[in-house]
Amino acid sequence: MQYKQNSEGIKVVKIGGNIVDNPEALSSFLIDFQKLEGKKILVHGGGVMASKMAINLGIKTTMIEGRRVTDAETLKLVTMVYAGWINKNIVALLQKDGCNAIGLSGVDANCIPATKRSTCPVDFGFVGDTTPNNVNTTFINDLLEKDIVPVFCAITHDEKGTLLNTNADTVAYTLSVALSQIAKTTLYYCFEKEGVLKNVDDPNSIFLSLTKEEYQNYQEQKIIAGGMIPKLFNSFNAIDGGVSEVLIMHAKNILSQKGTRLTRSHETIAK
Amino acid sequence: MQYKQNSEGIKVVKIGGNIVDNPEALSSFLIDFQKLEGKKILVHGGGVMASKMAINLGIKTTMIEGRRVTDAETLKLVTMVYAGWINKNIVALLQKDGCNAIGLSGVDANCIPATKRSTCPVDFGFVGDTTPNNVNTTFINDLLEKDIVPVFCAITHDEKGTLLNTNADTVAYTLSVALSQIAKTTLYYCFEKEGVLKNVDDPNSIFLSLTKEEYQNYQEQKIIAGGMIPKLFNSFNAIDGGVSEVLIMHAKNILSQKGTRLTRSHETIAK
Repeated sequence: MQYKQNSEGIKVVKIGGNIVDNPEALSSFLIDFQKLEGKKILVHGGGVMASKMAINLGIKTTMIEGRRVTDAETLKLVTMVYAGWINKNIVALLQKDGCNAIGLSGVDANCIPATKRSTCPVDFGFVGDTTPNNVNTTFINDLLEKDIVPVFCAITHDEKGTLLNTNADTVAYTLSVALSQIAKTTLYYCFEKEGVLKNVDDPNSIFLSLTKEEYQNYQEQKIIAGGMIPKLFNSFNAIDGGVSEVLIMHAKNILSQKGTRLTRSHETIAK
Repeated sequence: MQYKQNSEGIKVVKIGGNIVDNPEALSSFLIDFQKLEGKKILVHGGGVMASKMAINLGIKTTMIEGRRVTDAETLKLVTMVYAGWINKNIVALLQKDGCNAIGLSGVDANCIPATKRSTCPVDFGFVGDTTPNNVNTTFINDLLEKDIVPVFCAITHDEKGTLLNTNADTVAYTLSVALSQIAKTTLYYCFEKEGVLKNVDDPNSIFLSLTKEEYQNYQEQKIIAGGMIPKLFNSFNAIDGGVSEVLIMHAKNILSQKGTRLTRSHETIAK
């Protein structure tokens, strides 16, 4: 593919709620993140902190298939926690070390418009589904060209005045596919495990690499199951959408890039 | 003064917590705000909503001389409410009508660095004082040049990793003085009263105009007193700092510009 702009490549890094909720892990991760060379974007979750705040506010958390049901009160809660406290706190920590970060949600400069999910078969409430083609890549690329690091929380909007809660993995997927149209883009899913495990009880049983075909075989054999499925689904969708490769790894390994490397085929890995 | 850039002028509009807390008033204001011609910036408060949320979370609100004391819990609370819910909600409402707004705090792209206020004589906690010279006018002007409307909440940072709570009137003052170095800048303080009143019990007794000298005389005579003093102090500081004029008015009058007009001298008003 010939890239029109930003040929040096873009890294989209997603960190999960468990890292965000642990001040030491977050601080340590952010120091490493700054050392990543080239243009980069951070996407953060915050579900752990949102669930704690929900308890403080007496708001009931309802999860269906691992996804938060977002009623009006929960939308306010997650917008406060994700776009407010977590997002600005991360930006402040990056700015401390001279990394010129900017905190954004999908509503800001209309970066990530979304569509409220159909209430059928399950009504998830104010939840937004995103499409890479709708991302405002011009604005995001302008920031990257100025060496500004966008830090996205997973709040989007419907362009009709309503904020929407979106899965942070999905936001990272959406941004990386959109940006892969203008530059070689790599997606990093960082969480509290070492990678995709062959045996969920053995933290050392990491797949070093996976192609879509292998993944589908392992899934059929139930070797890969549970919470890993949506992450891998997003990952291979990202690769199908144009992202060069996806790395699933522990946040502490962002610089060594030790983890599970997902690519289109083994040929791509060999390169 | 010769302006280097952006000669068409910039309007910095500040809305207070009472408008922000009233969905109808806010919606109506935002429709009018979009009709304001030229480059513009919105700065919003949110104290009323923060105080309500403090009650929900069992956090005690302490005010000294009308200013919120910001301990660690309160800092988290105001960041959630101001930078999260209020800021993103306003941006979503503006985007709905095609106004390309972006929600920002002072930490984002290091727009407004601040200094934590001395704990002597009063320890206000995590409160930031700002200096117009430190504002990142280059970044803000880049947004304005792209017809993007910055929407600022009053959260700043100390550049050492700590967020700070700042008075929203002060943020509006700081931005307007900073921007007056690159363009003719007008500052609008919009709140729930018609302007500066001669008689606090008579809502129609509005000063149509005030110079600094007149204000000082009225203050000495105790005709102007109470909560109006800090707003007028900021206003005349803004004029001394280079802002062309300041309008203090009801939010509903943003288009008619009916209210109290503050300028350097009556000659400036006559112009």
